[in-house]
Amino acid sequence: MTASPSPALARHDLIARFSEILGPAGVLTDATDIAPFCTDWRSLYHGRALAVLRPASTDELAAIVRLCVAHDVPMVPQGGNTSMVGGATPDDTGREVVICLSRMNRIRGIDPRDLTMEIEAGVTLKAAQDAAWEAGFMLPLSISSEGSAQIGGVLATNAGGNNTLRYGNARELTLGLEAVMPDGSVFNGLRRLRKDNTGYALRQLLVGSEGTLGFITTAILQLHPQPREIDAALCAVEDASAALDLLGLLRSRDPSLLQAFEFMSGTGMELVTDLIPGAGLPLEETAPAYVLLELATPRPDADLREFTESVLGEALEEGIITDAVIAESESQRAGLWKLREEHAEAQRRAGASVKNDVSVPVTHVPELITRATSACEALIPGIRPAPFGHMGDGNIHFNLVQPEGMAPEAFLARSHDIMDTVSAIVKELDGSFSAEHGVGQLKPYMMPSWRGGAELAAMRHIKTALDPRNLMNPGKVLPPATQGA
Amino acid sequence: MTASPSPALARHDLIARFSEILGPAGVLTDATDIAPFCTDWRSLYHGRALAVLRPASTDELAAIVRLCVAHDVPMVPQGGNTSMVGGATPDDTGREVVICLSRMNRIRGIDPRDLTMEIEAGVTLKAAQDAAWEAGFMLPLSISSEGSAQIGGVLATNAGGNNTLRYGNARELTLGLEAVMPDGSVFNGLRRLRKDNTGYALRQLLVGSEGTLGFITTAILQLHPQPREIDAALCAVEDASAALDLLGLLRSRDPSLLQAFEFMSGTGMELVTDLIPGAGLPLEETAPAYVLLELATPRPDADLREFTESVLGEALEEGIITDAVIAESESQRAGLWKLREEHAEAQRRAGASVKNDVSVPVTHVPELITRATSACEALIPGIRPAPFGHMGDGNIHFNLVQPEGMAPEAFLARSHDIMDTVSAIVKELDGSFSAEHGVGQLKPYMMPSWRGGAELAAMRHIKTALDPRNLMNPGKVLPPATQGA
Repeated sequence: MTASPSPALARHDLIARFSEILGPAGVLTDATDIAPFCTDWRSLYHGRALAVLRPASTDELAAIVRLCVAHDVPMVPQGGNTSMVGGATPDDTGREVVICLSRMNRIRGIDPRDLTMEIEAGVTLKAAQDAAWEAGFMLPLSISSEGSAQIGGVLATNAGGNNTLRYGNARELTLGLEAVMPDGSVFNGLRRLRKDNTGYALRQLLVGSEGTLGFITTAILQLHPQPREIDAALCAVEDASAALDLLGLLRSRDPSLLQAFEFMSGTGMELVTDLIPGAGLPLEETAPAYVLLELATPRPDADLREFTESVLGEALEEGIITDAVIAESESQRAGLWKLREEHAEAQRRAGASVKNDVSVPVTHVPELITRATSACEALIPGIRPAPFGHMGDGNIHFNLVQPEGMAPEAFLARSHDIMDTVSAIVKELDGSFSAEHGVGQLKPYMMPSWRGGAELAAMRHIKTALDPRNLMNPGKVLPPATQGA
Repeated sequence: MTASPSPALARHDLIARFSEILGPAGVLTDATDIAPFCTDWRSLYHGRALAVLRPASTDELAAIVRLCVAHDVPMVPQGGNTSMVGGATPDDTGREVVICLSRMNRIRGIDPRDLTMEIEAGVTLKAAQDAAWEAGFMLPLSISSEGSAQIGGVLATNAGGNNTLRYGNARELTLGLEAVMPDGSVFNGLRRLRKDNTGYALRQLLVGSEGTLGFITTAILQLHPQPREIDAALCAVEDASAALDLLGLLRSRDPSLLQAFEFMSGTGMELVTDLIPGAGLPLEETAPAYVLLELATPRPDADLREFTESVLGEALEEGIITDAVIAESESQRAGLWKLREEHAEAQRRAGASVKNDVSVPVTHVPELITRATSACEALIPGIRPAPFGHMGDGNIHFNLVQPEGMAPEAFLARSHDIMDTVSAIVKELDGSFSAEHGVGQLKPYMMPSWRGGAELAAMRHIKTALDPRNLMNPGKVLPPATQGA
């Protein structure tokens, strides 16, 4: 891995070599064809690419990685192009190739006795969920971009979502992995072992490394049985502290039933019911805050409803919640989820907003919400804090909507002040500046102050050891060597 | 990390420096004091040590690591000294120091709302379990050496045990970690975050690295609620294939209830009931094989017994099992577990035996047992295969007892033939040569053929990057560079 690269090839020679390996269908060079791969979906980043390469197999990918290494060509992996942090967008040098694995899109098999699915990187998460469901099982990983996001990117970014508190994030659901390493060798870790203590946790390391240590080509994912009963309930609470009490009550009864626990502020809910057609609050009165919870069990005779009613009844009696409604049908359940899922859209309609995907220890969520709300209100009078999200995991999308009547540009000009205000509190509460979305190219600058010292040093050593020429998704995750420890 | 070491100090100078840092109580040099640290409990390895160092804090440990690095002194971490693979025993050069963290033995706190425990490396697993239980929770990690094994070693070896199929192994239960890295810096990852996508999975990498990448000093562990109902049942089955059907049936009903699923062969059970006083089979007839299963729930009104009886009734009706008994009391439950836990002791009493701690995909367990049994019987007529263990995780202790009447030495002379026979089948079934016990110094020679190519190469790159002078537990996990890829 330390041999010198061959002399740089002219662009057309390189492309000819790529075409030899991939065939003409596997190499895009036309500017129009390439354009969609050079911009992220939020349009935050606009890069250029030498070419877009579309290998159809692990062997083809390994061959082009070796070619890129030999000629010092940086590589940017891309799946469904749904990164929130520019993790899959090339830089503007035009030297980088984008490597898109969407042609590797086979579901290789589902093992109904082992509850596993072997699946290639280019399958969309939705297609994977559907295939699992048709086979009688559930792939519990679910994120809002699942219709486009592909398994390779889902694993490379260790995706989370609504059901993480019960089933874990992408890393916990990945039993086996195949990846092309930065020298073009193939790591074949497509094992289906629940216990395997034979050396370092490479699989766990590759998951979440955002394509900087290797490109994931195939995975073996853990499936779960389908739930036979699901109860969704919307609860009105006084504040996040009461929501935490409700979580504690549910966990003390049976933590294995809880598969979602979503917090919503009164402000956020009001925006949804005001601005989203068909979104109505199914409670008699509005409240300062809400919890959308979901209980589920695969057990056929579990009497889940009895449990749900009993525990919510107890919560009402004890004053933990002030009101609650349990969905009586699939459509009512969808209606409750609509209130949660339309938060981002309602905020968009309300004007400019600033987003923070942060996490803190679950017990600190109330303090985070109280303190960050006050601090932002002090910073910009009239600002509308609308925190919501995966409270059961301590993961809050601490979004802030502009004051009514303020010019959006004036509000957005304060974005960094707002983010810094929230960040400072998250940091004091031992939290994270990126709970779900990763680091990408948006947040490497935050790494030295949040993960500096021995931690960042170890990450840099690992990166340099595996990818000494920094050709795998350069500029992502780690800040430049000149910045920070 | 690449600066040249200072000139080697004479032993007495080094010891004086260690004593300055640790005080006299922290440095053992007397041969009698050192002896217990130089031999593993199975007495497979006998090493020597320059000294045994007993830091009382992370700062003290960091200081001695820096001193060792400066003077090129290799370090061997040791906790309860319960390794099955010589992972904590020094070599015979006398150059190595043993670093024992048993003075770092505080349980720093339990957070009842976050269900977490902050705990230092030197606490025994049993003490950690007890503290969690007294606080009203459960630390589900349980292994037979838990009375001696310390948290640092438990995490460094990614310990598993009986309840892994429900609660995960040590890695899954570790939310946060502090470790002293090979350059003496401190990785402070004592976070309690369920979601945190900010860079590489160092915590997961350190867990299971057997002290070769850093020394774990403190951890934040995930607790679970105590079960309120537990049903243990012993089932008679025709073979491992029927046991697999039983596992499938239980999982299709409610996988969240199952917390142990242990297979035992008829041969192994017969040895236990014949050779262990007070161990009687609570079934009317003996069977070719048995399953000890345990269902548990924290839910107070779960009617677990009704569920257990219903599912075992169905299994009987469908011919999956031929008989079953459910423990009616704590003492009956202990009696069932005694049948399982005395397997090793019964085998010891039956003469010489050869042990294999292997794993395969759960669905391949029947094939493993059938094929390995036949192959070993063909190899040594009269050999008594007595496979048992964590079938729910695909982890079988494939132990083989000598033929009756054979000289133990003659049988043990065939150890490697027997292990190779079992290994070859495990490998064909995409299994692992070490499910739970790790690699230590017993099995690095197996790494090139089982985890060679890109996988071992990546492990070597990581090791060299983090510990360029190979001073952290050298000779463990990875084979010498001259061996294998």
